[in-house]
Amino acid sequence: MSAPRDRIPVAVLGATGAVGQAFIRLLQDHPWFDLVEVAASERSAGKRYRDAARWIGEGNAPESIASRMVLACDPAAVSAPIVFSALDSSVAGEAEAAFARAGRFVVSNAKNYRMERDVPLVVAEVNPTHLDLIEVQRKNRGWKGAIVTNGNCSTIVAVLALAPLHERYRLKRLFVTTLQAVSGAGYPGVPSLDILGNVVPFIREEEEKLETESRKMLGVLSNGAVSDASFGVSAHCNRVAVENGHTICISAEFETQPSPEDAIAALGAWRGAEDARTLPSSPAHPVIVTLDEDRPQPRRDVNAGGGHSVVVGRVRKDALFGLKMVAMGHNVVRGAAGAALLNAELLVARGMMNGL
Amino acid sequence: MSAPRDRIPVAVLGATGAVGQAFIRLLQDHPWFDLVEVAASERSAGKRYRDAARWIGEGNAPESIASRMVLACDPAAVSAPIVFSALDSSVAGEAEAAFARAGRFVVSNAKNYRMERDVPLVVAEVNPTHLDLIEVQRKNRGWKGAIVTNGNCSTIVAVLALAPLHERYRLKRLFVTTLQAVSGAGYPGVPSLDILGNVVPFIREEEEKLETESRKMLGVLSNGAVSDASFGVSAHCNRVAVENGHTICISAEFETQPSPEDAIAALGAWRGAEDARTLPSSPAHPVIVTLDEDRPQPRRDVNAGGGHSVVVGRVRKDALFGLKMVAMGHNVVRGAAGAALLNAELLVARGMMNGL
Amino acid sequence: MSAPRDRIPVAVLGATGAVGQAFIRLLQDHPWFDLVEVAASERSAGKRYRDAARWIGEGNAPESIASRMVLACDPAAVSAPIVFSALDSSVAGEAEAAFARAGRFVVSNAKNYRMERDVPLVVAEVNPTHLDLIEVQRKNRGWKGAIVTNGNCSTIVAVLALAPLHERYRLKRLFVTTLQAVSGAGYPGVPSLDILGNVVPFIREEEEKLETESRKMLGVLSNGAVSDASFGVSAHCNRVAVENGHTICISAEFETQPSPEDAIAALGAWRGAEDARTLPSSPAHPVIVTLDEDRPQPRRDVNAGGGHSVVVGRVRKDALFGLKMVAMGHNVVRGAAGAALLNAELLVARGMMNGL
Amino acid sequence: MSAPRDRIPVAVLGATGAVGQAFIRLLQDHPWFDLVEVAASERSAGKRYRDAARWIGEGNAPESIASRMVLACDPAAVSAPIVFSALDSSVAGEAEAAFARAGRFVVSNAKNYRMERDVPLVVAEVNPTHLDLIEVQRKNRGWKGAIVTNGNCSTIVAVLALAPLHERYRLKRLFVTTLQAVSGAGYPGVPSLDILGNVVPFIREEEEKLETESRKMLGVLSNGAVSDASFGVSAHCNRVAVENGHTICISAEFETQPSPEDAIAALGAWRGAEDARTLPSSPAHPVIVTLDEDRPQPRRDVNAGGGHSVVVGRVRKDALFGLKMVAMGHNVVRGAAGAALLNAELLVARGMMNGL
Repeated sequence: MSAPRDRIPVAVLGATGAVGQAFIRLLQDHPWFDLVEVAASERSAGKRYRDAARWIGEGNAPESIASRMVLACDPAAVSAPIVFSALDSSVAGEAEAAFARAGRFVVSNAKNYRMERDVPLVVAEVNPTHLDLIEVQRKNRGWKGAIVTNGNCSTIVAVLALAPLHERYRLKRLFVTTLQAVSGAGYPGVPSLDILGNVVPFIREEEEKLETESRKMLGVLSNGAVSDASFGVSAHCNRVAVENGHTICISAEFETQPSPEDAIAALGAWRGAEDARTLPSSPAHPVIVTLDEDRPQPRRDVNAGGGHSVVVGRVRKDALFGLKMVAMGHNVVRGAAGAALLNAELLVARGMMNGL
Repeated sequence: MSAPRDRIPVAVLGATGAVGQAFIRLLQDHPWFDLVEVAASERSAGKRYRDAARWIGEGNAPESIASRMVLACDPAAVSAPIVFSALDSSVAGEAEAAFARAGRFVVSNAKNYRMERDVPLVVAEVNPTHLDLIEVQRKNRGWKGAIVTNGNCSTIVAVLALAPLHERYRLKRLFVTTLQAVSGAGYPGVPSLDILGNVVPFIREEEEKLETESRKMLGVLSNGAVSDASFGVSAHCNRVAVENGHTICISAEFETQPSPEDAIAALGAWRGAEDARTLPSSPAHPVIVTLDEDRPQPRRDVNAGGGHSVVVGRVRKDALFGLKMVAMGHNVVRGAAGAALLNAELLVARGMMNGL
Repeated sequence: MSAPRDRIPVAVLGATGAVGQAFIRLLQDHPWFDLVEVAASERSAGKRYRDAARWIGEGNAPESIASRMVLACDPAAVSAPIVFSALDSSVAGEAEAAFARAGRFVVSNAKNYRMERDVPLVVAEVNPTHLDLIEVQRKNRGWKGAIVTNGNCSTIVAVLALAPLHERYRLKRLFVTTLQAVSGAGYPGVPSLDILGNVVPFIREEEEKLETESRKMLGVLSNGAVSDASFGVSAHCNRVAVENGHTICISAEFETQPSPEDAIAALGAWRGAEDARTLPSSPAHPVIVTLDEDRPQPRRDVNAGGGHSVVVGRVRKDALFGLKMVAMGHNVVRGAAGAALLNAELLVARGMMNGL
Repeated sequence: MSAPRDRIPVAVLGATGAVGQAFIRLLQDHPWFDLVEVAASERSAGKRYRDAARWIGEGNAPESIASRMVLACDPAAVSAPIVFSALDSSVAGEAEAAFARAGRFVVSNAKNYRMERDVPLVVAEVNPTHLDLIEVQRKNRGWKGAIVTNGNCSTIVAVLALAPLHERYRLKRLFVTTLQAVSGAGYPGVPSLDILGNVVPFIREEEEKLETESRKMLGVLSNGAVSDASFGVSAHCNRVAVENGHTICISAEFETQPSPEDAIAALGAWRGAEDARTLPSSPAHPVIVTLDEDRPQPRRDVNAGGGHSVVVGRVRKDALFGLKMVAMGHNVVRGAAGAALLNAELLVARGMMNGL
């Protein structure tokens, strides 16, 4: 594992949206990657970034990006060998394939390819070896490049909280109820009239994603295919009036049942896969355990580990499944742009991008 | 069953707090009850109600109450034969016993006596026969009056959504995750700095109440004692930035498993116990089923049935337990003051207050 | 002045939007008007209302409307003699003219014609006589019908609070700062990411509307033209995280300076123009004065007078201009649909719609 | 001006409250000051800080403070020569005097001494010379120590936005309307039921403070006394559902009227008093001008300059007073703890603490 000799030029596709903006923020002063191009939909292409994008985070778009021309999402227009995709699913399917076909590494946050059997769905600290699926993908599709995906935001937060326990105790059954931040729906996203002082107990396709993606991420790669983990999952997904930070209530049953103390010890000791521990964006602790009775909370914990850590609290006995707890993570950083960034760093560190 | 000939004088104990104010609002122009006295803590006693209470709902305290003198919470100071108790649990224990000893009917929202084996814990539409425990209570304690309680706010909402199904299919195991409104914590209650844009995944004692009270309410009275229902329960309780309306995500396993269609039919057809259908405050439908994919929602459904109905939606298959759904109800009306009021109306209708 | 013998058929244009929905709610069981048609943009026309509109208020669209087919906004498709217009300004200009040309009364909440010199801009209780401009309008334009408008939502609230004082003391200079609810921007309107826990100190064109419309409404009609009132106005407009209810801080200088006590007396005694006092939707008190030190508040006062009253509080000395106070009113009811409805009722009561 | 040779030991009085916590955060790793003691009310004294204080910001109290014993607010218990006071006004009067009498420098955020004629009320960048009042104070009161105060949070924000203009154009009359964050009321402070989805148009004493303190801060010190600036002020103060960041709408009239362009240039060029430019906590720009039409906003601008900068936007013509604009600043940092910290740094830099 090693750092690249020179900073690698990268681009962001879908750069004007909420996740695209998070990519831009996280790529500021990145030691390995140099953000040289921003691309977006036809509506934005050809404009200066500052005119095309309404910056929704704190402060303003970095000056170096603000003055840049927005390119079309087309491998003919974008030259960087690595592209981060924050594209909407309505266009990601074709665009990402075009980039992979053109020999680029597409590190995507879009849902389109996540469940394809030859596409890695990776949380860097959890299942880095799944990246080997790239070989299969290239063979199957005749691509010189590749597509690597990360999971849906709530799934990543849940999987990080569960991986340390699954590794030791094997998950059997899982109930999760999410309380998800509005930024998960992008911008403009959730109308204020729908969520001010309200809860919306429905997020389209979210429960399905949690139920399928978690099993793939915690599955095992062998002979060029991932066997999904076999645990059962049931999810309830809710939108709440929070800006950033998905809170997830978890009740879990394991093959070997850990006590709450066992679980706290396992969570606290976990550092994730060796490969992922020293990446530029790796948090010291991918999972942080809190013993405070009323934590984690979005407002107080969302930026733990620079937004890359998941905070787990209220680890306690569950009357039915043995163990319950609450996990919370930054949906835009840990659950989207930051997850993709870690995946790209991992690809570089493992030498999988050599030759680009 | 019959209406009283004359309006019965009633009092509210703890009249200055959030639930006390709800009693006052619901007792305005009540056909059977005449609110003649308001009582509160020593700090308030002796002041005009308008000076003692900060009115937290819409508009202002009714003029007839605003000008009234606040009394001490003492049977020597309060003369009404029926007292609604919105007392804080720190004082409810002694005060309510004193009133019962003095021959009054105490219809209480406080938690102190709920789990006492000789005290009825009643949702009018669900387990009205439990009121017969009053006889046992009087014998045990030598009281001429009695204490009747209703459940904790989130428990009542959950129990109403589950009773129609439990009656037909027998509950076996139950996961509930709540998203609870700030009014459930009273006034001043939750500091704004704790909840604006936030979720707090902890409410003291709430999970325990949900787990114990639900089994008592759905239990069976025979031979002067309630045998708790035997289903297993696991609860996760969260506070969210909602003013009124607790949302509850439910996954339920039954002895005989209903399909979602069966469940919808059972919920839609349910009218609750015969006795409770024609009380002055009875909603036409104690449970309302919505087929909208993103309902119920506090902002849109909290006042269904005047706040007395629980709205149930998203009734669907659960991969683990067979059935999942979302219930939402007004925590201050259906879950507190309105529940107590229905209990009092039921006592009158069943003739149990004759002789007062 | 008299009620119509039979209910008059009316239509709502732009019926699927936020103000359109408010018209539908307010027209439920209206004694004079019978809502027989709903019309909206091409995207919605031809669908059932329940499929075309996302109902954003409490509960659901009235069943009688939900099942109705949405018509095109075209006098050929809509037959009612009175149409309430909640159209977006991008289409209101042409559509409203087409209806007026076709002989219909257009009672409009759109901004397009408000400042036209031959179009009445009316708050029923304040300047009902401006309706006489209709004659001029018809002559000028050769229309058989007419367009009558109400002001912008924040302007109406401010004007109602000021009219009782202007009538007696003559406004000279006026500072207003608004804190406006998100519903004023319609649906989907303000994205939640822009307003949760935030203030946006800008609402496009709002300050200009406040400055121009207030002078026209408080102007004097003579010889077929309105002379605008001559006071100076400066406005600051802000969006805040409130669902309904615009709060307006006012500092006002008058020709004859009233003391706070004078102002309170004048505001409290005011009932508005005689003509407007007994309309079906007239509140008993168009302006309500509160003496509570921390009122009016949207959450507690927005539904005063069924949403048709403006609540004024904190009437006190202003160090620079003599008088300051806070006004608050329901922007969707008093400031939009309810204002138009009162205008329509006034037209009927004054016999101006005879012959329709 | 010079840095101290060794870090100076300092204490925080009222360390468990909201402003006390902000002092602790800002004093972490401070180059000049070493936080060695935390003191609070009797209720907290004698406990570990972590048990006495509910940490309300992000993350947790710094470990070095969390484990420290809380002292009583008494010069006999606290030894540091400089004490930052975040005391409640109910106790600040006596406690601060006791510390000053005992020879300590009290740098206070409390309101008690602000308007005393011999107590400096200072914004470091605006009126640093007012610190010379200390000599008068010591003579008058026979103290070896001294009390230095900063203004009320909204006043500081307004004064910073106005100082650059007042210096050049002389303020004549001023209207300000504030939209203030809940953190300004401390913790627990504003109950959530009062502010969720609401505006409260009243903050006790706030308008008075804005009107009096702003004139003192912009006043001139000569012959040992401050002559208040003579401009007229009228303020409207409102509480809104924002966590941090007071927004202030300003209409201002000057002796010499600047155009908006003049004002923007003056604001943009301003760096504050020479003395205050190179303090450890000085922001590069005490005032930042934004040209975005809808800024400043709390959510996007509150942390500008680490929370020490005030952001001014919407600088435009005012129809009545010539100039209007919107200022926004972090009420806890710029408006409270950070303002006091700058004052302490200034005292050190000017050598006024030599001999301590």
